[in-house]
Amino acid sequence: MNESSEVALAFDDTELLPAIAQDTDTGDVLMLAYVTPEAIEKTLETGFAHYYSRSRDELWKKGGTSGHVQRVADVRVDCDGDTFLYRVEQEGGACHTGYESCFYQTLDSVNRDEKESTDPTDASAVTAETTVVGERVFDPDEAYE
Amino acid sequence: MNESSEVALAFDDTELLPAIAQDTDTGDVLMLAYVTPEAIEKTLETGFAHYYSRSRDELWKKGGTSGHVQRVADVRVDCDGDTFLYRVEQEGGACHTGYESCFYQTLDSVNRDEKESTDPTDASAVTAETTVVGERVFDPDEAYE
Repeated sequence: MNESSEVALAFDDTELLPAIAQDTDTGDVLMLAYVTPEAIEKTLETGFAHYYSRSRDELWKKGGTSGHVQRVADVRVDCDGDTFLYRVEQEGGACHTGYESCFYQTLDSVNRDEKESTDPTDASAVTAETTVVGERVFDPDEAYE
Repeated sequence: MNESSEVALAFDDTELLPAIAQDTDTGDVLMLAYVTPEAIEKTLETGFAHYYSRSRDELWKKGGTSGHVQRVADVRVDCDGDTFLYRVEQEGGACHTGYESCFYQTLDSVNRDEKESTDPTDASAVTAETTVVGERVFDPDEAYE
């Protein structure tokens, strides 16, 4: 028999918590986005992954525009209730760039521009040299036209 | 030939960014913690996963106390440079509770206490009913004594 329990979710500290999506077929980590309690409720209720878009400031069904939906097998929560793991079956690719996973680049080195790093609004202060290792599975121009 | 590029890391918006750890043997998602540029540099330099502890406010080598280190095969960065993926070989278990993964509970339902949710300091405002599905691989009392 499996052990049941009640876990406090850490939405008191912040409005949003991170949710990782993992492909149950390949095991690949696909993406990370943010969720509200409502996004998790919608995910459990519909069986499709929902997140909260920080840029558009709204509840967001993954694949609502592109058709690249995520069918959710189960939702895990971590030991301290502040991160979620959506275990999903991904339609098409998860990344808006056309890659199967958003984590399609491996990091070779990190470069800090000491001069510019004093300006917190300068996005170029910390950069990384990367190599593309992922697989492109769709053409983003067609998916989002 | 693999494509190389330079990616801006989103440390300008926040001091810390999330890093997911995934076991390269099992494919399991083990944990999520936060990193600074220094934590990533230490990880690349030493080959062992480093994070930044928000509670202790310091750079942290995973397994420094327990011996449950993570040997890092590679570090991935996502499409918008604001999340990292450490692909690791985990010694022992990743979770301080003794489970292999911090994501050892599956979420059955989310409960919002509407009365209490107006108080943002109340951690019990949003809770989840969960079922334990993970595997305990070590005794935390022995690892952290």
